[in-house]
Amino acid sequence: MSKLTDVPKRILIGRALRSEKLGETLLPKRIALPVFASDPLSSVAYAPGEVLLVLSIAGASAYHFSPWIAAAVVVLMFTVVASYRQNVHAYPSGGGDYEVANTNLGPKAGLTVASALLVDYVLTVAVSISSGVENLGSAIPFVVEHKVFSAVAIIVLLTLMNLRGVKESGKLFAIPTYVFVTGVFIMIMWGAFKGIVLDDTMRAPTADYEIKPEHQGLAGFALLFLLLRAFSSGCAALTGVEAISNGVPAFRKPKSRNAATTLFMMGALAVTMFCGIIGLAMATDVKMAEFPARDLISNGAPVGPDYVQNPVISQVAAAVFGDGTFFFVLLAAATALVLFLAANTAYNGFPLLGSILAQDRYLPRQLHTRGDRLAFSNGIVLLAGAAILLVWVYEADSTKLIQLYIVGVFVSFTLSQTGMVRHWNRHLKTERDKGKRRRMIRSRAINTFGAFFTGLVLIVVLATKFTHGAWVALLGMVIFYGTMTAIRKHYDRVAEEIAAPDEPGEDSVRPSRVHAIVLVSKVHRPTLRAVAYAKAMRFDRLEAISINVDPAETTALKQEWDRRGINVPLKILDSPYREITRPVIEYVKGLRRESPRDVVSVIIPEYVVGHWYEHFLHNQSALRLKGRLLFTPGVMVTSVPYQLVSSEAAKQRARKRQEWHAPGSVRRGMVNGRPKEPSGRA
Amino acid sequence: MSKLTDVPKRILIGRALRSEKLGETLLPKRIALPVFASDPLSSVAYAPGEVLLVLSIAGASAYHFSPWIAAAVVVLMFTVVASYRQNVHAYPSGGGDYEVANTNLGPKAGLTVASALLVDYVLTVAVSISSGVENLGSAIPFVVEHKVFSAVAIIVLLTLMNLRGVKESGKLFAIPTYVFVTGVFIMIMWGAFKGIVLDDTMRAPTADYEIKPEHQGLAGFALLFLLLRAFSSGCAALTGVEAISNGVPAFRKPKSRNAATTLFMMGALAVTMFCGIIGLAMATDVKMAEFPARDLISNGAPVGPDYVQNPVISQVAAAVFGDGTFFFVLLAAATALVLFLAANTAYNGFPLLGSILAQDRYLPRQLHTRGDRLAFSNGIVLLAGAAILLVWVYEADSTKLIQLYIVGVFVSFTLSQTGMVRHWNRHLKTERDKGKRRRMIRSRAINTFGAFFTGLVLIVVLATKFTHGAWVALLGMVIFYGTMTAIRKHYDRVAEEIAAPDEPGEDSVRPSRVHAIVLVSKVHRPTLRAVAYAKAMRFDRLEAISINVDPAETTALKQEWDRRGINVPLKILDSPYREITRPVIEYVKGLRRESPRDVVSVIIPEYVVGHWYEHFLHNQSALRLKGRLLFTPGVMVTSVPYQLVSSEAAKQRARKRQEWHAPGSVRRGMVNGRPKEPSGRA
Repeated sequence: MSKLTDVPKRILIGRALRSEKLGETLLPKRIALPVFASDPLSSVAYAPGEVLLVLSIAGASAYHFSPWIAAAVVVLMFTVVASYRQNVHAYPSGGGDYEVANTNLGPKAGLTVASALLVDYVLTVAVSISSGVENLGSAIPFVVEHKVFSAVAIIVLLTLMNLRGVKESGKLFAIPTYVFVTGVFIMIMWGAFKGIVLDDTMRAPTADYEIKPEHQGLAGFALLFLLLRAFSSGCAALTGVEAISNGVPAFRKPKSRNAATTLFMMGALAVTMFCGIIGLAMATDVKMAEFPARDLISNGAPVGPDYVQNPVISQVAAAVFGDGTFFFVLLAAATALVLFLAANTAYNGFPLLGSILAQDRYLPRQLHTRGDRLAFSNGIVLLAGAAILLVWVYEADSTKLIQLYIVGVFVSFTLSQTGMVRHWNRHLKTERDKGKRRRMIRSRAINTFGAFFTGLVLIVVLATKFTHGAWVALLGMVIFYGTMTAIRKHYDRVAEEIAAPDEPGEDSVRPSRVHAIVLVSKVHRPTLRAVAYAKAMRFDRLEAISINVDPAETTALKQEWDRRGINVPLKILDSPYREITRPVIEYVKGLRRESPRDVVSVIIPEYVVGHWYEHFLHNQSALRLKGRLLFTPGVMVTSVPYQLVSSEAAKQRARKRQEWHAPGSVRRGMVNGRPKEPSGRA
Repeated sequence: MSKLTDVPKRILIGRALRSEKLGETLLPKRIALPVFASDPLSSVAYAPGEVLLVLSIAGASAYHFSPWIAAAVVVLMFTVVASYRQNVHAYPSGGGDYEVANTNLGPKAGLTVASALLVDYVLTVAVSISSGVENLGSAIPFVVEHKVFSAVAIIVLLTLMNLRGVKESGKLFAIPTYVFVTGVFIMIMWGAFKGIVLDDTMRAPTADYEIKPEHQGLAGFALLFLLLRAFSSGCAALTGVEAISNGVPAFRKPKSRNAATTLFMMGALAVTMFCGIIGLAMATDVKMAEFPARDLISNGAPVGPDYVQNPVISQVAAAVFGDGTFFFVLLAAATALVLFLAANTAYNGFPLLGSILAQDRYLPRQLHTRGDRLAFSNGIVLLAGAAILLVWVYEADSTKLIQLYIVGVFVSFTLSQTGMVRHWNRHLKTERDKGKRRRMIRSRAINTFGAFFTGLVLIVVLATKFTHGAWVALLGMVIFYGTMTAIRKHYDRVAEEIAAPDEPGEDSVRPSRVHAIVLVSKVHRPTLRAVAYAKAMRFDRLEAISINVDPAETTALKQEWDRRGINVPLKILDSPYREITRPVIEYVKGLRRESPRDVVSVIIPEYVVGHWYEHFLHNQSALRLKGRLLFTPGVMVTSVPYQLVSSEAAKQRARKRQEWHAPGSVRRGMVNGRPKEPSGRA
């Protein structure tokens, strides 16, 4: 990489790049928290708004239910945190939801969780970026005026950064996350101080608006359904909580305990922020509507389609700090940045999960090598493509996208917790130590409650969100599930086909002789090298073959062959139709027919070139011949490479590619970008 | 090919398919004429209209110049025919314009002609299809109402037919061509009879229209320029005349004389039809305008943008036979069909020229094999893509496309005739026989006049058409020229790099020993086969290598290896980062460092699969490893294929592909779709 291309990157992520030391150590809690919590903490930027938005369907008066809904979310959050603290202790090697479900509930449950997680990663990108754009837009209107464009541009930027292999450090996550958390807390405390102590009246920008209810005077079952829907939306605050359970190996010792503590801190921060924002929204009279253009009434008239409904967090900030003030802009920027970081975590998680799935043969085997650049790139491009599609279709509207989001999260919560119950049951069968048994029973109780509660939420989410978009997420899961099942079936079928028989079979029979053929077109260095190598191998029979497509050239070749005294017989195959492949195939088949116990070794001089376009100019006939030869049993094909001068460029590129670091390593406890514990699954 | 898929094709081109006998014999003149003449004869469908259209710029009164222009076209036609009769005699092996220019004027002239011809083939498709659609549209209005769509659809259809490899027969060309020629002659004679003998007044559909001249009262240089422009447009009648000179080997003996006679017949037919149509157009008061919407006046008002200006031939047919009568529709259909056949000739010519250029290393070498399906397909797709682009950009308007067409034709006419002059000069230097000398001098005179006249026309065309679109054709030629020059330079550079030194160099040095490595991941049939083959080769050293990415799997592999008593040492390479490529590369490099005079043979078991998507699931790591290994000097890579059951499908496909026939064979004197004289260039 030249110094010049470094400059924009340095500007983009500043000094952090140079602090390579951080990568060499495991994460202390104060760094681990922001690394893992950008996703769940950033959810408080959109979750409170979603609650108000759904309640507004019954009119602004329904807002008084919001504390109850917040309370339900808090209970759920602590249930989930408590449950995952058990995961962290039980799987210190970093057992993610996929592995917990796979190990304890069997491959089908595992695959269901994997499908849900893959869909979730896509939605994490789509939702976080859209919400980030909305938050940034409250300070910079241009961004929200070109919402889809801005969102797609940021996805493309993140994608390029990740493809390029930006080396990470904990600080990169720490600074924006702490700025964001501190900002929100200052806002909550300053708001409380102003409201309670100074008795100052803070008014949100939408305080004077009225809401036209979609349904007047909802009651009974309809009201209950609405409240459940609002609760489902609030559950968006829980997305990303499970991330720590994947990352235990990245913590300092005692790993599990540190991870559990961090998890608790994260939960506490999240609920405090969530409740604080809802409280401030109540106090400052924020108004949010599902269809603001129609249902938000200002001075007796609807605000119309040009109205931009800012996120709750930015409306509250405007009320507390004042619109456009330094603190307001700082908080908007920090919120957006944390949301973009949250999206970035999906860029790390998606290919990582892909590599684990590839290990279990649900995805192409070459994705198996973790941190492998090509595998990583494929995953990244797939993720970005799907996210851009969603952003495009849903016009970067976070409210619409959130309808799709929560299903997957709760599918994996529920199955993971159910798996944990099985896990404890299995261990309780053999464990005799009383103290340990007591702790296990306690853990099992927590996980049972977690499974039950998250399962209930899953049903609620499915019931209230299915027609609003959750079906899209389910469809995505079904597609992933089906594809992965088909791939696994294919691998199983092939594995059965190629399984070595117990008795030595025909494949172990050593061929009686090897008949080697060097393909020759002209006498040049690659040919000479191929002939020299072939001679060194002492085949039972060795001959050179040339296809006669042009009699004059063939005559010249023969003369040159004799003149140089190359002591390998040269055989000319006639090709009246100027084909290359057919005469060789037929000759090889003829040899096999003559002596079926022999094997034929075809040696092809091959050019090694440096630029992609040169591939169109070289080796094409050889490649096609090779492709056809491989179908012929009893044949092997040897390439003798000849490195052209231009190949040096490609070699340099390949070498540089080897020095590449897979992003996301900081979350997995890497040393210098390499995993500390290669045998454990992260 | 199943019987079922045959049915639509049979419907499409009828019985002709079954008459395979025709392909076995060389062409008699009565079949050769339609085979080669569909392109030049079909030009009379648009050329007369173009003349009138240009003249109309000076008003309908300028139409009285049209007989003079027709006369000039006739003189030019006979000049070109006479010139090419010399080519046919001088190059009985079928020397096309490219080879004549290349041999006699040097590679730059040859490449210029080649570029011109490649552009011409694209334009032949675009112009013929557009004009065919216009002619068909005079009978079926739907076609002309969706002109671009219809034109693109027909190009796609032709492309698919050619890619599929439809077997041709002379009859396929003969029937529509003879119907077309007969139809035009009946029209001319019936029209003359009605007009002169019956003294019947025939009125074209546009007879009562008036033309608003673009320029009133043109005179002097401006008028001359306009007449020259009209003449240039009329020269469109000459496109395709050169085709016979490529096809001499396809004629019955005496080949050259028969070809020359056919050429003369073609010229005579073309000029008679051209003049007859112009004469009838005059007699029936056809009105054509360059911008009919604005300049055609009906009852005092412009006809407006909805007016469709039908081709002259169809207007004349409407006047002679009556609009919508059987003869009218038959002639329109035959005209369209002959135009589509003319387009089809470009589908044969383009890849054929490509193969000749590849032989001279101006195009990727693999295109060299003539009739090779892949090479052929690439050419076809490139041709169709370029033609579709032109049709799209120029809205399938034959008048606009013709502005681009004629430049290339006259570039190759002029250079080919100049080349012929050189040819005779060279032969005259050595020829002593008086009679032969006399004939040569006569031929030279004809070619000199041809070169001079066509060169003059080229200048006229450039001067009058450059801004009207000829610059696009020239740009296309420059692009082809530049690309082909660059490819040739690359090949020359590589040829120099790999040229074998006269003294035995380092490439001829036989390595002292061969150290072989079999890559092993599991003990299965492919591995066993690779080990058995490797053993048969008696390397100086042989070992099996496995990469330890999963300790459990590695242990299992070791145990299985020992249990089976495979007497090849198994070495485990550690890979802490789960990479496959790097450890192998480093191990191989280590071996090379230890003993630089040895060579390393890496043996990779490879799966052979049958479906394209299976490639994503297998061999990817092996392929990438191979790609990297080829950069390492002193290494050769051997694939030992293991054919999975599914590979049978691919094998069948490959076999079927081998039975494929390159379209266009009938024009090149093929026996059963194979060339009769494989050594000659057709």
